[in-house]
Amino acid sequence: MLAELRGLNEECGVFGIWGHEDAAQLSYYGLHALQHRGQEGAGIATKNGKGLLVKKGEGLVNEVFSGDALKGLTGRSAIGQVRYTTEDGRGAENVQPLVFRSTTGSMAIAHNGNLINAKELKENLEKQGSIFQTTSDTEVLAHLIKKSGRGALTQRDCVKKALSMLKGAFAFVLLTEEGLMVAQDPNGMRPLSLGKLGDAWVVSSETCAFDLIGAETIRSVEPGELIIINEKGLQSDRFAEAGDRAMCSMEYVYFSRPDSDIDGINIHMARKRCGKQLAKEVKIEADVVTGVPDSSISAAIGFSEESGIPYELGLIKNRYVGRTFIQPTQAMRERGVKLKLSPVHQVVAGKRVVMVDDSIVRGTTSKRIVKMLKDAGATEVHVVIAAPPLVSPCFYGVDISTDSDLIATGRTATEVCDLIGADSLTFLSAEGMLKAIGRPKEMKNCGQCLACFTGEYPTDIYADTVLPHEKELAR
Amino acid sequence: MLAELRGLNEECGVFGIWGHEDAAQLSYYGLHALQHRGQEGAGIATKNGKGLLVKKGEGLVNEVFSGDALKGLTGRSAIGQVRYTTEDGRGAENVQPLVFRSTTGSMAIAHNGNLINAKELKENLEKQGSIFQTTSDTEVLAHLIKKSGRGALTQRDCVKKALSMLKGAFAFVLLTEEGLMVAQDPNGMRPLSLGKLGDAWVVSSETCAFDLIGAETIRSVEPGELIIINEKGLQSDRFAEAGDRAMCSMEYVYFSRPDSDIDGINIHMARKRCGKQLAKEVKIEADVVTGVPDSSISAAIGFSEESGIPYELGLIKNRYVGRTFIQPTQAMRERGVKLKLSPVHQVVAGKRVVMVDDSIVRGTTSKRIVKMLKDAGATEVHVVIAAPPLVSPCFYGVDISTDSDLIATGRTATEVCDLIGADSLTFLSAEGMLKAIGRPKEMKNCGQCLACFTGEYPTDIYADTVLPHEKELAR
Amino acid sequence: MLAELRGLNEECGVFGIWGHEDAAQLSYYGLHALQHRGQEGAGIATKNGKGLLVKKGEGLVNEVFSGDALKGLTGRSAIGQVRYTTEDGRGAENVQPLVFRSTTGSMAIAHNGNLINAKELKENLEKQGSIFQTTSDTEVLAHLIKKSGRGALTQRDCVKKALSMLKGAFAFVLLTEEGLMVAQDPNGMRPLSLGKLGDAWVVSSETCAFDLIGAETIRSVEPGELIIINEKGLQSDRFAEAGDRAMCSMEYVYFSRPDSDIDGINIHMARKRCGKQLAKEVKIEADVVTGVPDSSISAAIGFSEESGIPYELGLIKNRYVGRTFIQPTQAMRERGVKLKLSPVHQVVAGKRVVMVDDSIVRGTTSKRIVKMLKDAGATEVHVVIAAPPLVSPCFYGVDISTDSDLIATGRTATEVCDLIGADSLTFLSAEGMLKAIGRPKEMKNCGQCLACFTGEYPTDIYADTVLPHEKELAR
Amino acid sequence: MLAELRGLNEECGVFGIWGHEDAAQLSYYGLHALQHRGQEGAGIATKNGKGLLVKKGEGLVNEVFSGDALKGLTGRSAIGQVRYTTEDGRGAENVQPLVFRSTTGSMAIAHNGNLINAKELKENLEKQGSIFQTTSDTEVLAHLIKKSGRGALTQRDCVKKALSMLKGAFAFVLLTEEGLMVAQDPNGMRPLSLGKLGDAWVVSSETCAFDLIGAETIRSVEPGELIIINEKGLQSDRFAEAGDRAMCSMEYVYFSRPDSDIDGINIHMARKRCGKQLAKEVKIEADVVTGVPDSSISAAIGFSEESGIPYELGLIKNRYVGRTFIQPTQAMRERGVKLKLSPVHQVVAGKRVVMVDDSIVRGTTSKRIVKMLKDAGATEVHVVIAAPPLVSPCFYGVDISTDSDLIATGRTATEVCDLIGADSLTFLSAEGMLKAIGRPKEMKNCGQCLACFTGEYPTDIYADTVLPHEKELAR
Repeated sequence: MLAELRGLNEECGVFGIWGHEDAAQLSYYGLHALQHRGQEGAGIATKNGKGLLVKKGEGLVNEVFSGDALKGLTGRSAIGQVRYTTEDGRGAENVQPLVFRSTTGSMAIAHNGNLINAKELKENLEKQGSIFQTTSDTEVLAHLIKKSGRGALTQRDCVKKALSMLKGAFAFVLLTEEGLMVAQDPNGMRPLSLGKLGDAWVVSSETCAFDLIGAETIRSVEPGELIIINEKGLQSDRFAEAGDRAMCSMEYVYFSRPDSDIDGINIHMARKRCGKQLAKEVKIEADVVTGVPDSSISAAIGFSEESGIPYELGLIKNRYVGRTFIQPTQAMRERGVKLKLSPVHQVVAGKRVVMVDDSIVRGTTSKRIVKMLKDAGATEVHVVIAAPPLVSPCFYGVDISTDSDLIATGRTATEVCDLIGADSLTFLSAEGMLKAIGRPKEMKNCGQCLACFTGEYPTDIYADTVLPHEKELAR
Repeated sequence: MLAELRGLNEECGVFGIWGHEDAAQLSYYGLHALQHRGQEGAGIATKNGKGLLVKKGEGLVNEVFSGDALKGLTGRSAIGQVRYTTEDGRGAENVQPLVFRSTTGSMAIAHNGNLINAKELKENLEKQGSIFQTTSDTEVLAHLIKKSGRGALTQRDCVKKALSMLKGAFAFVLLTEEGLMVAQDPNGMRPLSLGKLGDAWVVSSETCAFDLIGAETIRSVEPGELIIINEKGLQSDRFAEAGDRAMCSMEYVYFSRPDSDIDGINIHMARKRCGKQLAKEVKIEADVVTGVPDSSISAAIGFSEESGIPYELGLIKNRYVGRTFIQPTQAMRERGVKLKLSPVHQVVAGKRVVMVDDSIVRGTTSKRIVKMLKDAGATEVHVVIAAPPLVSPCFYGVDISTDSDLIATGRTATEVCDLIGADSLTFLSAEGMLKAIGRPKEMKNCGQCLACFTGEYPTDIYADTVLPHEKELAR
Repeated sequence: MLAELRGLNEECGVFGIWGHEDAAQLSYYGLHALQHRGQEGAGIATKNGKGLLVKKGEGLVNEVFSGDALKGLTGRSAIGQVRYTTEDGRGAENVQPLVFRSTTGSMAIAHNGNLINAKELKENLEKQGSIFQTTSDTEVLAHLIKKSGRGALTQRDCVKKALSMLKGAFAFVLLTEEGLMVAQDPNGMRPLSLGKLGDAWVVSSETCAFDLIGAETIRSVEPGELIIINEKGLQSDRFAEAGDRAMCSMEYVYFSRPDSDIDGINIHMARKRCGKQLAKEVKIEADVVTGVPDSSISAAIGFSEESGIPYELGLIKNRYVGRTFIQPTQAMRERGVKLKLSPVHQVVAGKRVVMVDDSIVRGTTSKRIVKMLKDAGATEVHVVIAAPPLVSPCFYGVDISTDSDLIATGRTATEVCDLIGADSLTFLSAEGMLKAIGRPKEMKNCGQCLACFTGEYPTDIYADTVLPHEKELAR
Repeated sequence: MLAELRGLNEECGVFGIWGHEDAAQLSYYGLHALQHRGQEGAGIATKNGKGLLVKKGEGLVNEVFSGDALKGLTGRSAIGQVRYTTEDGRGAENVQPLVFRSTTGSMAIAHNGNLINAKELKENLEKQGSIFQTTSDTEVLAHLIKKSGRGALTQRDCVKKALSMLKGAFAFVLLTEEGLMVAQDPNGMRPLSLGKLGDAWVVSSETCAFDLIGAETIRSVEPGELIIINEKGLQSDRFAEAGDRAMCSMEYVYFSRPDSDIDGINIHMARKRCGKQLAKEVKIEADVVTGVPDSSISAAIGFSEESGIPYELGLIKNRYVGRTFIQPTQAMRERGVKLKLSPVHQVVAGKRVVMVDDSIVRGTTSKRIVKMLKDAGATEVHVVIAAPPLVSPCFYGVDISTDSDLIATGRTATEVCDLIGADSLTFLSAEGMLKAIGRPKEMKNCGQCLACFTGEYPTDIYADTVLPHEKELAR
């Protein structure tokens, strides 16, 4: 399904590299591979012998870094981020990496995730005189590091102390005087992988960035681990004991690129197995299977393979829809102008269609696509979702609306099916999903976070924990 | 396969609309749907009560028409074009529609195709005092219309007389004092369809533009037909007898969008049948089938379905690669940075892979992809091409290089296979392709042009006929 | 006064260079010096061994040629133009140089001026089958050259024959197979100078372009002269007998830059003498003299020097007002927001002010400035105009509105004075202006065109002669 | 003289408005009037009922706020800044207003000036755990305000306490929960004026911004004064006793616009009197007086009026030189291409020229202009400077290079004259300047800062005080 159609957004993707003469340009390509994780802002900070350099802005990676923008970013180490921000630009100051300059040394930070004790930490920091220039959690970490440094601690110890105070989901990359630092929350909730490019070390939210630049995937960053990379090489340290692993299920289901691997499991293959599992869980009499592009294609292929119903391109995504695109008026939209998806008439006309999608958020998009298929002549439209229903908000960095916005909250599949106008609606069972993804069975929930499907959160949730989009709105 | 990787380019796409208050904006969406046919230039001309208005420029549709650009284009009729031009901008004056202003009335023309007697016509016109401001064939038609008008002919008769002098492949849309005129060459070599949107008439190179704006497909424009649409309605006329139908095969194989239909045959379905046919013609022992995105996906699905070998996403296309993208250096490319396609390691590692593509031009890209798959661990790579080998240049508007550039010219499949480093290479037979596409068997070559596969051209070819890209170079 | 405030616009400026390795870049600087003559479009065409290259677009010189735009313009000869066009972009196709491509050779043309028999010539050409893609006169010349070439004439003879058919004011630069050609109309109505830069020849609408690039001014191009510059050097030829010289008076009064010379007379000095002459013709009791920037500064200095009344900066021009500037709403403007000119309170408060301007067109701007000065505390505002009143339209390339728009047409100075709210209004006498500018007395009107002041046109005017801005509107 | 030619740069200009429905747009026009004070960055922050909104970026005001950029800035109060930053963009994060967000309320700050104890303050703050995201002094104030707030102080008291810790030159505008706050350092070194627009209050670095928006100038902000404007009206408070007034002399001499007033003295008039005074102090036999545009025009007019030597436009500034301008190569420059100033040959050829300028920094520009005039035929060039020689660096916000870069440091006028190749060189005496500007004689140095002329600084200078451009370089 299409992220932009329904406001189901990842907060961002991060990338880092140490020890390569083309650090900035490789970061550019790395961020380009992560572009699907955030299209609203991008930035790269590099470190040369003299200090930190940073270039960031609103827009796509290739918009922010046009012309000679990369040339000024000298140095053999770099970190970068791509970011999703709110539409009115109020978040412009949140574009990362954030850079903190100090008489004793500077630091750049990029972050993916969401802290659940950010409000409490901020209030404490403000009581101690800290001021904030952004609404992002990233700045909280910088303040904590600085406060930790009042004694005679090394920078590494300050960072560890600061990280240990954070609750929630996070993947941090820091570029400091001591080197490139990489940290993952104690539950390992957001993907973060370590790779090697010749003698250089690279880290990335997804391994697809490694493939694009020709780097090799080494391993995932461990829960609670702090990796420091500098002239002495790579050192693995810990700032916290590893808790129960709780990797975000939606990374497998929806966010990550099909060519990425998380903990050694390929996303396309996992999705395809979910599609197959779905076909085992439900029997549908139909003529064609079609996926909602792009993220549901793999599951649709799997459903087709297992069910024996032919897989077809029943829906086509219109590329080239950029931000400068002139939107159709409401009147035009009602008269049938459709920008993002087009049905393929000959594929669906007179056919019983299985429409595979990865999720239903508010239901409005599903309803529109079902109608589109029926208008194109489909005699039946059976919606199958290659994941369990979304019923609870996410506090860990996925911008899922509050539960009142989630159509499946408090409704049966039949009720939802009626609302979206489909002939049937089937969700993959949670057990089926876990089995199909194939993470270790000995872990709790196979090491996955199921909070948005079950409402059971792997961490404490505080009374004042706010959803990601609420932070953006805070002033 | 990726057009931009190999210089196999369509010249353009055209769109027209008559009788709608949102003529310009609907043209904008129509051209947007045709964007894949040309990304270098775009333009729209409208006609209001007072005269012709035109806005055009280099870039994508949403770049040329940003901000308020559409607002000035008032009027209830419009034509537009998207265009591929040469990289150094020398063709900037060729961006269409071309507008010709006259004391007795003005005219806008947009064109898809290539005239094979353009040089001769131009020389004759120049002898009669005509001057040319572009290097495009479109200007030739305007001159011929004007010259035809010296007697007491109506504009329609002038246009018919002028069209009758043209040889080659063409689909013209004209916006004149007498209305919207639409013409197709006597062999009907380029796709051009007629549709209806409420009371308004629409024409388009591809029917996907109709789907996007909610219009209904009526029929193809006939070979040798001139359609005039004005206040009196639609009138069908002829400027020439219909010759043997010779629709460009590459439209089915490669150019058109999968959701378009040509002469009632859906592109995705045709390609899928080609893939199935291919699987009937060759038996390969393999573990996975993968298509080279985007245009070979349908054939790969068909091959998988017929062969029973699972279809997988073995290659991922990197989106977001725009013109402002900073290209990797040669050194980076050699070290493995790959911008446009990434292999999916877990899908191909240790597997025997069937790689389905739609064509091989110079062979360099195929070689690169084969290597990419093997580097990712594929034990065998069997290349299957869902079309016959390209061996002859095209004079009808497809920018296929001269035959010396075509790797298959004068080489056996085995020789080509060796050059691209594959374990086997199979082309679809011409008969198989014709059967799979499924056009009427009673027509010669089922009404398809096979020139690039066979060297047999459906029209005369003149000694001075030049290839499309040679025209751009002429000064 | 400010051109943009009142629609008194020059049509353009032209530049040419032959025989310099930096031809394109020097043209860029030359056009930059001529930027005040047209801010709406700019273009440069160069000629290298292989053909013509052209780059043009809407906007300022430094906007059209940003980044690497000049790099593609190779060759040792070039022509260029800056241009004023209508605001709605309909004239986009009129941006020059126009390039005409032919199987026997190509040609680029840039033009400053206005033909008065363009309509007749166009109609004749259309009867012979010519078609037009622009609304500019320039295209007429290209057609005439082509038509002239049907016999066995050399290109030079064709150009001469074509030029001889043109009536009106024109300064042409052509880049052809035979070299750089430069022509001036038989009355020499628009400025055009010849210069030398080392071994290279340069031509320009104004000599300020020579100063900027370090070239030396040689002489004016003669009325009726055709200069051909090529490998054989410079040859002076004629296409017509020289008529009575009739150099545009408004070039001295308003258009040209103060550092340019026309026929050896410096513009600043001529304007200053006009101011002095004005002070001789009228005695005003006042405290300060101020000029309306930029073009009236010189006359104000002269008025001050002759009258002994101190010269002050009573009005300041706001720079940085570009096309992207957000205009104030009408309400804001009424509340006093003034973008282009600000009064200097301390200079004018409590003072009797002589406000020197160079012309009054519709009177609205003068009225606004008088009010602005009075609002700032001026006790009296005496408007003195360093030229005679504008009473007749110009058919030679200056976009003066029709006479009904000219406030001075059919009104006495006293009546105009009342309309603009000044305490007195004085125009310079025509004799005084001629004497002050100081061209040869033995020529008729000292070799100046006085048509806009007197209604006596130096050439025939045809029934169908149209004003420049009417051409832009023609479709 | 031209700021961009010699690196004599003001740090910025600030603007604020309270109580107007068009707060953002009026700020836009106000900043536009202050554009000469900084062309590298611009920003506006507004306050509506819900919080602070900010939009800022690199470039001119009309570049940063293009399209709909102003529409999102709702609210009835606003502050803004235009800024000069270093050329390599490292200062991008320094573009103001800076916004600080807090759980208890947010704050925006814009600043003009330079703190001389910034380093010490920063180090102290860092010791207390503060972190810095910019290299600007502005952030120091924000931290101090926050730290001051740990007790039970009101926001106003916190701001007062914080301001009282600052040493140096500063003009601050703050937009906070309590309203618009405006502060001036105890010596009143940078200009800052208060005005009224209907019921709304406005503040600006220069009064020319008031004129442009139709506001009335009320008075200067007093040294040591803190003005708070909110729903209760305007309240004047103090954070420090007023010290000796020490208004920057270079504001009169060079920075401010001629139509601005400082402490009731008009800049143009002050400069003209300086020119007159200079003509009293030195007698030169010469034929023409010319000023180096734009800032020396007023002094040149005064010199001419007093000396009786005619004032002429001997040098013309080329407008339209924007940042995207393609710079001439060194070779071109040596061959005479001159972008910024052109001499007017007929004005200077064969003449003895008095060239009036406002300052000499490194001397390279003066040398170039003298040569330009001589190359244009001037027989003698007498340079007169309407200010005393610059011999000492400025620590208060003017980017004058260290004294080793100042050509007049340790050299007599005769020695400097030889270096720049003039026939004579005269500086205005310090007494003459003070008298001509005409501030109150009873104040020390008439209430002006003369540090750059005398090396006597009106405040203490610390061992670790750094020049403005050194801050930009700090990381």
